[in-house]
Amino acid sequence: MKSIITLTTDFGFGDPYVGIMKGVLLATSRDLTIVDLSHGITPHSVLEADFVIRGSYSFFPENTLHVVVVDPGVGGGRRVIYVEKDQHRFLDPDNGVLSGPLDGADRVLCVVNRELFRDAVSKTFHGRDIFAPVAGRLCSGLDPVELGPPVDDPVRLDWPEPTLGRDAIEGGVLYIDVYGNIVTNITEEQVEKLGSGAHVFLKGEEIGKPRPSYDAIEKETPLALINSFGLLEIAVREGNASRRFGAGTGDEVIVTRNVDA
Amino acid sequence: MKSIITLTTDFGFGDPYVGIMKGVLLATSRDLTIVDLSHGITPHSVLEADFVIRGSYSFFPENTLHVVVVDPGVGGGRRVIYVEKDQHRFLDPDNGVLSGPLDGADRVLCVVNRELFRDAVSKTFHGRDIFAPVAGRLCSGLDPVELGPPVDDPVRLDWPEPTLGRDAIEGGVLYIDVYGNIVTNITEEQVEKLGSGAHVFLKGEEIGKPRPSYDAIEKETPLALINSFGLLEIAVREGNASRRFGAGTGDEVIVTRNVDA
Amino acid sequence: MKSIITLTTDFGFGDPYVGIMKGVLLATSRDLTIVDLSHGITPHSVLEADFVIRGSYSFFPENTLHVVVVDPGVGGGRRVIYVEKDQHRFLDPDNGVLSGPLDGADRVLCVVNRELFRDAVSKTFHGRDIFAPVAGRLCSGLDPVELGPPVDDPVRLDWPEPTLGRDAIEGGVLYIDVYGNIVTNITEEQVEKLGSGAHVFLKGEEIGKPRPSYDAIEKETPLALINSFGLLEIAVREGNASRRFGAGTGDEVIVTRNVDA
Repeated sequence: MKSIITLTTDFGFGDPYVGIMKGVLLATSRDLTIVDLSHGITPHSVLEADFVIRGSYSFFPENTLHVVVVDPGVGGGRRVIYVEKDQHRFLDPDNGVLSGPLDGADRVLCVVNRELFRDAVSKTFHGRDIFAPVAGRLCSGLDPVELGPPVDDPVRLDWPEPTLGRDAIEGGVLYIDVYGNIVTNITEEQVEKLGSGAHVFLKGEEIGKPRPSYDAIEKETPLALINSFGLLEIAVREGNASRRFGAGTGDEVIVTRNVDA
Repeated sequence: MKSIITLTTDFGFGDPYVGIMKGVLLATSRDLTIVDLSHGITPHSVLEADFVIRGSYSFFPENTLHVVVVDPGVGGGRRVIYVEKDQHRFLDPDNGVLSGPLDGADRVLCVVNRELFRDAVSKTFHGRDIFAPVAGRLCSGLDPVELGPPVDDPVRLDWPEPTLGRDAIEGGVLYIDVYGNIVTNITEEQVEKLGSGAHVFLKGEEIGKPRPSYDAIEKETPLALINSFGLLEIAVREGNASRRFGAGTGDEVIVTRNVDA
Repeated sequence: MKSIITLTTDFGFGDPYVGIMKGVLLATSRDLTIVDLSHGITPHSVLEADFVIRGSYSFFPENTLHVVVVDPGVGGGRRVIYVEKDQHRFLDPDNGVLSGPLDGADRVLCVVNRELFRDAVSKTFHGRDIFAPVAGRLCSGLDPVELGPPVDDPVRLDWPEPTLGRDAIEGGVLYIDVYGNIVTNITEEQVEKLGSGAHVFLKGEEIGKPRPSYDAIEKETPLALINSFGLLEIAVREGNASRRFGAGTGDEVIVTRNVDA
């Protein structure tokens, strides 16, 4: 059966870097399905890449290999790791980008076998010289044990968890998507614990109670709802909430047990 | 033979939404060729998506399944439809996005069989939860009759037709492309009926008579010509006509029988 | 074995032009792997496309067909050429875009056989009407001799070579990538000839000696290094050098034998 590889990078769409990685992948293993998960990660944003992988990998078939190259430490001392979790596989710089899947991972290896790399490894493009050839070999049936020894201290990010009080949740903005939807770090379960009177505030401004879907309100009106990642989101129906509220990553979002809180 | 699916969305290129849809597609049907037709549709612009599909689908092989997710009504009451026309297949929200292919369609079905959807259907991402799994099943040989009952009143857009007079055509700007080329809603046939003296005006400014190709004029000079969609276009040779004329969708374009009209 | 085609265009990502080309390719030859090398070439920039192809093609498997459609002369008199070099194949407008591979090419043919084109060839979209159908036929086993006669005068760009002095190299900026890294036309070999005291200056401002990798310096600090294309690059660690220095294509870069030069 054809192997599936996903690519997530901060390489953007203008340069040939992604295409070159695909060339090396196809030169290593011809019968691949390569899926671009995202190449629009903000340059060097390990946290954003972690968010994208965390919310996406489980929708792919088992045995998919997820390659993430958001790698500000390229050419320096950071390790390369291979991770297995729940029949999914990951190949990535050891910089926290896999903080999601590392939670409960079945296996973590350090990729050190230089025979699997390109003969000349540049100091600036390990996507081409390390990640692509190793990924290609893994998809051609390489036993992961050939990669290198186990790692017991992979780097994890301090994931920005909300503060949970008895009558309020203090969270923040995690991600802004193409529509300007404001994704928070507050989960559906956390909101539900506050009961049916829960009210959402963004940077002090009242958004109201969570709604079931965008069409619960008038067009161009702001609303809160639980999005497809299972997270609290603030949106404007057929509009751009991020622009409307001047909101960006890290801004404060509070959910209170009732409107007067 | 491998099935081909095209995807047209307003999801952009920065977020993982397109990649997640591909994950679900590949989890449903492994042997697919997935082609990105466009993910750069202006958010919520059903008219623009209709324009893209209308001008593109017939260049794909027969039996290709065209999935369009430009879906401002997601989570609300809008239907999902499956359309067959001239050996092409379409799966889309019933919001007018298929106004082109619906003209003379061979079959229109309402997709209501929830057994084909993901177990949990979110209120915000039907691309992942409905369109991708249903498309995957269709490419695995599902008989469309399993989708649901026929529809005889699919939603159609009021396509902005030009007004045709004896000595002039009053049309408008339909689409601006990456080069800044200004695509109008006036067809080659309509222009030809005005004869060889036909002159084009954009927002009152004379562009001149239609030319056979870009190189008929000097660089950086404006011209009118019939483009590859068979529509009248206003361009600047090796320049950007939209910026030059400050032109956008809906602006007035007039073609007269002669220059003095 | 599946054929591989790469596409490099200035079509961008918003319009359906790339998707339409893929439709025509798949209609001609079903069992293709199509790789997007770049669609973000600056509109009409033949030099930029040449840079991208030059630095990318050799990473793909032998027999890959590289199709470049950066084609300001579309619809005019420019020829279409097919080039073979070192087991790689190219199909492109004859406008200099292949200046890299033409150096030492094994075969150059002029594509004139109209039976291989779409029946109706537009004046504005040869990617769809000529390049895609011909590329599909080549991947289905067409003997290139069917394309047309040999060409002995293909168009070549004046590639901007640096001026090499005994104590200094006078070069320039060739390309800015997504990170804002400033790629110059000065090669690793040329820098090495100046010895270990070599110093880099951008628009008169001292950058310092070339470093082995980004992490040789503090974050947000400028540095020079040899990049993955084997070219001298000026970067800011985890920052944007192009913005920092207001640098763009054509700006002056000088490397001197020592800091006092």
